Amino acid sequence: MEPCFLTAAEAASAMRAGTLTSEALIRSCIERIEERDPDVKAWLYVDKAKAIATARELDKRAPMGPLHGLPFGVKDMIDTADMPTTYNSPVFQGYQPARDAACVGVVRYSGAVILGKTDTVEFATAGRRAATRNPKNFAHTPGGSSSGSGAAVGDRQVQLAFGTQTGGSHIRPASFNGIYGLKPTWGSVSREGAKQYSNMLDTIGWYGRSVADLALVGSAFRLHDVGEVAMPDVAGLKVAWCRSPFWDQIEPAGEKALEMARDRLAKAGAKLIELTLPPAFDGMFEAQNTIMMAEGRASFLDVSLEFGDRLHADFHDRANNALGITPEKLIAAYNLAAECRRAFEALYADFDVVLTPASPGEAPEGSYNTGNHIFNAMWTLLHVPCLGIPCTTGPKGLPVGVQIVAPRYGDARLLALGEALAPVIDQETASYAAAA
Amino acid sequence: MEPCFLTAAEAASAMRAGTLTSEALIRSCIERIEERDPDVKAWLYVDKAKAIATARELDKRAPMGPLHGLPFGVKDMIDTADMPTTYNSPVFQGYQPARDAACVGVVRYSGAVILGKTDTVEFATAGRRAATRNPKNFAHTPGGSSSGSGAAVGDRQVQLAFGTQTGGSHIRPASFNGIYGLKPTWGSVSREGAKQYSNMLDTIGWYGRSVADLALVGSAFRLHDVGEVAMPDVAGLKVAWCRSPFWDQIEPAGEKALEMARDRLAKAGAKLIELTLPPAFDGMFEAQNTIMMAEGRASFLDVSLEFGDRLHADFHDRANNALGITPEKLIAAYNLAAECRRAFEALYADFDVVLTPASPGEAPEGSYNTGNHIFNAMWTLLHVPCLGIPCTTGPKGLPVGVQIVAPRYGDARLLALGEALAPVIDQETASYAAAA
Repeated sequence: MEPCFLTAAEAASAMRAGTLTSEALIRSCIERIEERDPDVKAWLYVDKAKAIATARELDKRAPMGPLHGLPFGVKDMIDTADMPTTYNSPVFQGYQPARDAACVGVVRYSGAVILGKTDTVEFATAGRRAATRNPKNFAHTPGGSSSGSGAAVGDRQVQLAFGTQTGGSHIRPASFNGIYGLKPTWGSVSREGAKQYSNMLDTIGWYGRSVADLALVGSAFRLHDVGEVAMPDVAGLKVAWCRSPFWDQIEPAGEKALEMARDRLAKAGAKLIELTLPPAFDGMFEAQNTIMMAEGRASFLDVSLEFGDRLHADFHDRANNALGITPEKLIAAYNLAAECRRAFEALYADFDVVLTPASPGEAPEGSYNTGNHIFNAMWTLLHVPCLGIPCTTGPKGLPVGVQIVAPRYGDARLLALGEALAPVIDQETASYAAAA
Repeated sequence: MEPCFLTAAEAASAMRAGTLTSEALIRSCIERIEERDPDVKAWLYVDKAKAIATARELDKRAPMGPLHGLPFGVKDMIDTADMPTTYNSPVFQGYQPARDAACVGVVRYSGAVILGKTDTVEFATAGRRAATRNPKNFAHTPGGSSSGSGAAVGDRQVQLAFGTQTGGSHIRPASFNGIYGLKPTWGSVSREGAKQYSNMLDTIGWYGRSVADLALVGSAFRLHDVGEVAMPDVAGLKVAWCRSPFWDQIEPAGEKALEMARDRLAKAGAKLIELTLPPAFDGMFEAQNTIMMAEGRASFLDVSLEFGDRLHADFHDRANNALGITPEKLIAAYNLAAECRRAFEALYADFDVVLTPASPGEAPEGSYNTGNHIFNAMWTLLHVPCLGIPCTTGPKGLPVGVQIVAPRYGDARLLALGEALAPVIDQETASYAAAA
């Protein structure tokens, strides 16, 4: 098998065993990019020569950390000291940051090879969309705003990549691209050097092709207790399956994925409990939108003043509070979020993990509409870790996933649960290489 | 009077009237810096030639915004595209960011002249202290971490400067330097490009020499309703004076300041009400510390990995969670903060503004101990706007201020209240130029 088709964990294991070099792995990913990316358009920038040179150096030295020799893609609203960072904005073409974002520094000093920058919705917010196409069907979006990262990992062009989530920008593309994604607990990964949209929401996450891949990156970020929690038995696990208060927006493919995951887990011996969230949660989608838009006011003021007419109207709208959000409404949204965070954690006494949709269904057609974040926004605002798991395909043959959710700072537990649940939920994407 | 002794609002008014040029103002500040800063050591970098050239250009053109032609100092943990940014860290000497921090961009595009970078506690966190000395007595600290900005504004070297507050780094130096300071509502000013310590706490603020100075900058940042709230009459205003749950740590000079401000306001016709906060607030100092230290874990992981032994142990301690803070303890702190935010706002039904200590007393001796943030940390965690007002002097002749506090997003109301209350509270610093 070409090394590009390995998971990150498999590749790391092969490198440790001496049967694979980082250089061979990187070269395989580059070949895949050269073959596929003219159509997929996941990348805005790839530094092939530098990646190969870095891999060669890493092959000569003792392991730097858990990501030694593994390729990493960086969503292009995250700064890199050695590659341009455009935020996919016309006003930042050719912009070269002086320093890596904190998250890039962490993976680089944990041994990762930064392969390049992936396309994104402008500032991971609005304005210009990524040019990226869904690798499974070029007429469809890969989702957004982490469009390029989701597609590149899904298309086997790279094993690992950063995404970010303010509404549903990380877990939704995981669903649309048939890959694994972790949005860790808010605050557990530094956002320094990533374009800011919303203080209370912005969260950096990563994609991989297995739960073990996600755990490798989690260990680089030293998530609380990561690697210390034993994988539980599926039999007897109490899984709360939750349609969420927004079920009226589910599509047949999303419904199929949730039911299939639920039924597969039940068949494997898990105890399935239907979870209906208390009525306060009904307001969480609107609260997330209020906070995102209101906090965007401060985030885009500098570029609004600096770039004037050259900047997309979407960002002026945020800087000018075009929605007219009042402090009273914003404060009510903050208070509701705090109340629901507490309530959600109290509910956990009755089960081990929550299973819930990752997207309404398959990826929509076209590139402007990157999909609906209705099944993500509430979880982002709750600050809880979310793990996206591939599940099935929809009527167009496109992937549809689900997500599992744990309480705040339960990332390590969520990863251990994911290790147990993923083989049961994800029975269709294992043989990707053969199908590709 | 030398232009450097004018307040920002007075200078802006003189420039509008054509009796002062920006160039003359900037030259006067530079002369003051040359005369005084070899002793005060407020600045790490001043670009005199560039500031004069910028001022000349601004003198030729129509006003860019509310800060047109005014000099601005930038705490050196905030990025500037045209000046080095060292974070006062040995590992960042000579570091040159590619882009202005968002807050610098906003004041620059509002017409401010960036005069230079002011000294700070390393990363505005711990490690190395600023070399800055209190301009009123060189044997004492100016406070920290916004040491240089507080001292430079206090010493009449610049009218306006940025500080930041995670614990008490902004309002405490305002007290110690006899100046005005606004810490706006958390989230209302973008922190992008400022070194991150704590997501939930970090707040950018600014210093000036009058409430009108602070309001000018507030209008550049488009704080909600700024300029729209009429100045109230002091007579009849309901002022809740609050010793806070931490009164056992007050010093005689801090007690004198609070009582003096209270008594002056009562004499001017305000209704003084003693406010005792509910018992839940007793835990807010510890909650602030828990959140700050726990969130510092993510913030310093990249520099911990990158710089190893070259980095001060204080930052490795944070990255390694040396305090062993558990998720349970952190979550309890978040939940307490949310509960107290709500409770604090409910209390406001009974009064117009809170008056409370800004520091325990005068600035301590020496440069290592930058003072205690016991009277600031709770307010930072409450996310509420705080306005520091000079009040009196202590037994060593050093300034001691107080602060007034409003509910979240009540910044404009707080500034209007400050306009009314400051002339009553601050009866001793008006004739600075004569005394200097």
